[in-house]
Amino acid sequence: MKRIAVLTSGGDAPGMNAAIRAVVRKGVYHGLEVIGVYRGYHGLIHGDLRPLSLGSVGDIIHRGGTMLYTARSEEFKTEEGQAKAVKMLEKHGVEGLIVIGGDGSFRGAMKLTQMGIPAVGVPGTIDNDIPGTDFTIGFDTAINTVIQAIDKIRDTATSHERTYVVEVMGRDAGDIALWAGLADGAESILIPEAPYDLDEVVERLRRGNKRGKKHSIILVAEGVASGVKVGEEIRRRTGWETRVTVLGHIQRGGSPTAFDRVLASRMGAAAVDLILDGEGNQMVAIQKNEIRGIPFEEAFKQKHRPDLSMYQLAGILAI
Amino acid sequence: MKRIAVLTSGGDAPGMNAAIRAVVRKGVYHGLEVIGVYRGYHGLIHGDLRPLSLGSVGDIIHRGGTMLYTARSEEFKTEEGQAKAVKMLEKHGVEGLIVIGGDGSFRGAMKLTQMGIPAVGVPGTIDNDIPGTDFTIGFDTAINTVIQAIDKIRDTATSHERTYVVEVMGRDAGDIALWAGLADGAESILIPEAPYDLDEVVERLRRGNKRGKKHSIILVAEGVASGVKVGEEIRRRTGWETRVTVLGHIQRGGSPTAFDRVLASRMGAAAVDLILDGEGNQMVAIQKNEIRGIPFEEAFKQKHRPDLSMYQLAGILAI
Amino acid sequence: MKRIAVLTSGGDAPGMNAAIRAVVRKGVYHGLEVIGVYRGYHGLIHGDLRPLSLGSVGDIIHRGGTMLYTARSEEFKTEEGQAKAVKMLEKHGVEGLIVIGGDGSFRGAMKLTQMGIPAVGVPGTIDNDIPGTDFTIGFDTAINTVIQAIDKIRDTATSHERTYVVEVMGRDAGDIALWAGLADGAESILIPEAPYDLDEVVERLRRGNKRGKKHSIILVAEGVASGVKVGEEIRRRTGWETRVTVLGHIQRGGSPTAFDRVLASRMGAAAVDLILDGEGNQMVAIQKNEIRGIPFEEAFKQKHRPDLSMYQLAGILAI
Amino acid sequence: MKRIAVLTSGGDAPGMNAAIRAVVRKGVYHGLEVIGVYRGYHGLIHGDLRPLSLGSVGDIIHRGGTMLYTARSEEFKTEEGQAKAVKMLEKHGVEGLIVIGGDGSFRGAMKLTQMGIPAVGVPGTIDNDIPGTDFTIGFDTAINTVIQAIDKIRDTATSHERTYVVEVMGRDAGDIALWAGLADGAESILIPEAPYDLDEVVERLRRGNKRGKKHSIILVAEGVASGVKVGEEIRRRTGWETRVTVLGHIQRGGSPTAFDRVLASRMGAAAVDLILDGEGNQMVAIQKNEIRGIPFEEAFKQKHRPDLSMYQLAGILAI
Repeated sequence: MKRIAVLTSGGDAPGMNAAIRAVVRKGVYHGLEVIGVYRGYHGLIHGDLRPLSLGSVGDIIHRGGTMLYTARSEEFKTEEGQAKAVKMLEKHGVEGLIVIGGDGSFRGAMKLTQMGIPAVGVPGTIDNDIPGTDFTIGFDTAINTVIQAIDKIRDTATSHERTYVVEVMGRDAGDIALWAGLADGAESILIPEAPYDLDEVVERLRRGNKRGKKHSIILVAEGVASGVKVGEEIRRRTGWETRVTVLGHIQRGGSPTAFDRVLASRMGAAAVDLILDGEGNQMVAIQKNEIRGIPFEEAFKQKHRPDLSMYQLAGILAI
Repeated sequence: MKRIAVLTSGGDAPGMNAAIRAVVRKGVYHGLEVIGVYRGYHGLIHGDLRPLSLGSVGDIIHRGGTMLYTARSEEFKTEEGQAKAVKMLEKHGVEGLIVIGGDGSFRGAMKLTQMGIPAVGVPGTIDNDIPGTDFTIGFDTAINTVIQAIDKIRDTATSHERTYVVEVMGRDAGDIALWAGLADGAESILIPEAPYDLDEVVERLRRGNKRGKKHSIILVAEGVASGVKVGEEIRRRTGWETRVTVLGHIQRGGSPTAFDRVLASRMGAAAVDLILDGEGNQMVAIQKNEIRGIPFEEAFKQKHRPDLSMYQLAGILAI
Repeated sequence: MKRIAVLTSGGDAPGMNAAIRAVVRKGVYHGLEVIGVYRGYHGLIHGDLRPLSLGSVGDIIHRGGTMLYTARSEEFKTEEGQAKAVKMLEKHGVEGLIVIGGDGSFRGAMKLTQMGIPAVGVPGTIDNDIPGTDFTIGFDTAINTVIQAIDKIRDTATSHERTYVVEVMGRDAGDIALWAGLADGAESILIPEAPYDLDEVVERLRRGNKRGKKHSIILVAEGVASGVKVGEEIRRRTGWETRVTVLGHIQRGGSPTAFDRVLASRMGAAAVDLILDGEGNQMVAIQKNEIRGIPFEEAFKQKHRPDLSMYQLAGILAI
Repeated sequence: MKRIAVLTSGGDAPGMNAAIRAVVRKGVYHGLEVIGVYRGYHGLIHGDLRPLSLGSVGDIIHRGGTMLYTARSEEFKTEEGQAKAVKMLEKHGVEGLIVIGGDGSFRGAMKLTQMGIPAVGVPGTIDNDIPGTDFTIGFDTAINTVIQAIDKIRDTATSHERTYVVEVMGRDAGDIALWAGLADGAESILIPEAPYDLDEVVERLRRGNKRGKKHSIILVAEGVASGVKVGEEIRRRTGWETRVTVLGHIQRGGSPTAFDRVLASRMGAAAVDLILDGEGNQMVAIQKNEIRGIPFEEAFKQKHRPDLSMYQLAGILAI
């Protein structure tokens, strides 16, 4: 193998740049040429490819976002689009492709492998919702962004002795809400993976209030309910002033944490090893602290589930 | 004078604790006893007063929020409420009162002075909207919180090459939007103090896009328009994907910046000097880098205006 | 079991407060009374014990340091001291003790178990040097503090195109240097667990310089060499301006990261479960993402080793 | 005037990039071509000049350091060097030069003006030691970096109930120590501009200790004494464990604060206005919140002094 390519696809996540850097440097270390594909599958179809050197990935390990940009591509979902992509890769002499993104992006990678270009996935998304891996690149940064935001809200919540509802990202997964809620001592955490009962939420608020709690924070995963609606409902039932914050896009950005930079560096390097093995059709995963490759099919068969023992623990510790 | 009291009122702001600390320590330095009134005018009416010692304000200079809490009081707006407040202060032998808060709170302080308790105001609000002072305690922290949030949004905005609309606080004032927008190179800044034209906003976006700008950020002060509506309007006119973030309550919290801690320390100490002068009826202000007292009436006659030369500059620099 | 106690010992670490909170709340949840021992074994000997309530651990999960303070105790190393400690625990009706600290502190806990007070250890140290557990409480925060510091140094290093040597903590372990170095793309990382050769360090610097690198950062673990000496040596061999920073005590403080707060919460709660089992003599560990108890003897037999594959990877990626 | 140039010189400071951006954009707005000189006067002599476009200063407003790099130049101190510099500027058709740096750099700018190239200075240094301006670009960021570091040290200081000595930068000026010390409630602040007495420092420590203070922090400006020596002296006199941290180069880096970005933007733009006036030989200053130009000679005649009323206040508030 002489030449590989790398792209980022789907929502961006902090640490993607560290993964790109690892792919390029590990590739060069093994004597490969590494091509950067700009703007994901859209750029792949339209020939937005440029060689990446050791220096072109210097000074990016600590930067949020992705230097390769990312974009949606309806065209790549069609067979024509995929054929164009393969042709483009062949035209540039690319023998293997590394796709940094979420599971939607990996389905494209699986397709390309089937069409003759071995492709390997690196899980990058703040949502931590990719089956088969314990952590995704960007998740640790996102939960730290969330707890830093909630630490600020806590100041004002305490000063006013009020209840705050905070809606966080996560698409269909509750991981961000669960980890951030446990880390921040939220009174209640609402996630898609566990049933919730607003009566109990209110009951907990009342109990805390009686005990003299200065503030309460309810963390709501976007996949389970709208923060605004939860806030209204609590206000209606308690008569208390309740404020709502939808954290929004700050959760996608920021300089990656140490954990994410290390994870991205290890995963990016492992992806090169997998591509050199020649088969493709795998994604890099971290399972019980070990980096390994698993076939896409195996990952897709599983369902991602956050650790619900942490959910119970959060309930116990926020008495 | 032997005994003074201090309270925080209205919305909390980072640096209020540093101001409380300064009042207590400067007061003790001058041989005064300092009483803390908890929960603003509401607590004052209901006798929520406790002595503060040197030690009770230790280790708070760096904390957001207010250790004295703050609350609304409809009762204090009535003559009966004010009479109760004066009685409570007399009962505790309080001869002077320092009120840390916004101009609404200062009207109460003026009233109390008229009723025999000399009161002095310390301007504390993130909005920077108090006439007579160049800066209020909490403003510098708030604009730093905003630019750090926008720096994160910028990562994801660049990666996706999208337009983001960010709505920030400020009540009727545009200071937060103006300073943060200039500091962050926002493409357009919408503030209540300057007319705006969405056509021009869109025109700037188009120009930036043509020149190859990777992202655009529109900063909207809550006092001028809803971020959501501005976002919809831009989408409608350009057809571009436009994302909206309402930064919300994170802007009120956080550890105060050096500027706010220093300003709060100087203003809190100056308030004690003014109270020792005996007249009350003044607010502490910073004007052209100098700390001084100005009569409430003088402040109330003025109108707060942000520096519009900065607005023009922001427009020039974000070409 | 009716009453347990908790103390922090040795160097403090961010997340200790989250662990204390978890011990207290999980204990109360199981119907236990929880006593806080202030100032470690020193306070234990001298009777510095006070009951902790649900509320007394409120609003501490996000604070660095330890609300129970920590102190050295030469006296506790003697048999008399240990006997006094046991007597004090018996006097207060304490039937189990949770010790949050490093392995030195755990030897005390083992001793107390042998003397009749079942004791359980929770690994808290920024150094990550406790055998038997993959991570210790405080490590993740420390490496994030280090990389944020290095990100700042990088700005000035780039501007001046200079070489910087940064000495970090870790006692005899290289974990902080290794993780932070990989996370920050340090040119060379000097740790006690791997032989190093200054000639090679200089050779890498020269190679990077030739390739046009704008700056170089050498990360030195305090356990392997003095940063100042490494800096001098590099200057001597290259003739280049070389600057040295010893990061020092900022590495011990700061608000804990999400990872550390979650780890501490889980470990603190697990310690209560272990203490309820009655035997003591164990430490809580995280191994391959699972929280479990392991006998002190088993832990002490092992030797802590950082993952040297990460060391090799760092070398490859910083070409 | 058709073409101007801009360079950064001396130690780098956060906000320099924001100033460069302002120079370029304001210049282009007025129809000028703007040339970037890389590596300060050294690069000027050696012809390291490249045109800067609107886009080349995009996405740098929030970055620490200087994109133009900075370097020392012994050669420029000679008449030959200066003559070469003038020749190079003439060769490139540069009619005016903007120098961002400290007062050492401004002497060079004065020289160039005398030799026929009108030059204007923009004060950029973390030390805030340039006479004639109330603030320099980078100072606000540096003091925030310092207080964030001290907030971390405070955690561990409190946990161990120890005394910490922290040495900060500032060259011959005490501004960083003074502002950060007031902002952080340091027990004692040692600056070159005020006499100090270690006996009194120790006496304050003893008093605080008696009153039950959990920790003490002594802030030492590098211009007045070595932190290590102050620490040793305190240890010798009190017998207490005293730890020393030399904050070092982290103080030079980091993303600039809002204040510094705004100041730099205003000053950079004002420099272009001054250069268009044609005379040169001035530096931009902020005095009592107003941006204006003052002749170099006028600035050089003055002596920079920090506000010593703040020094007294710090002493009163840290009782």
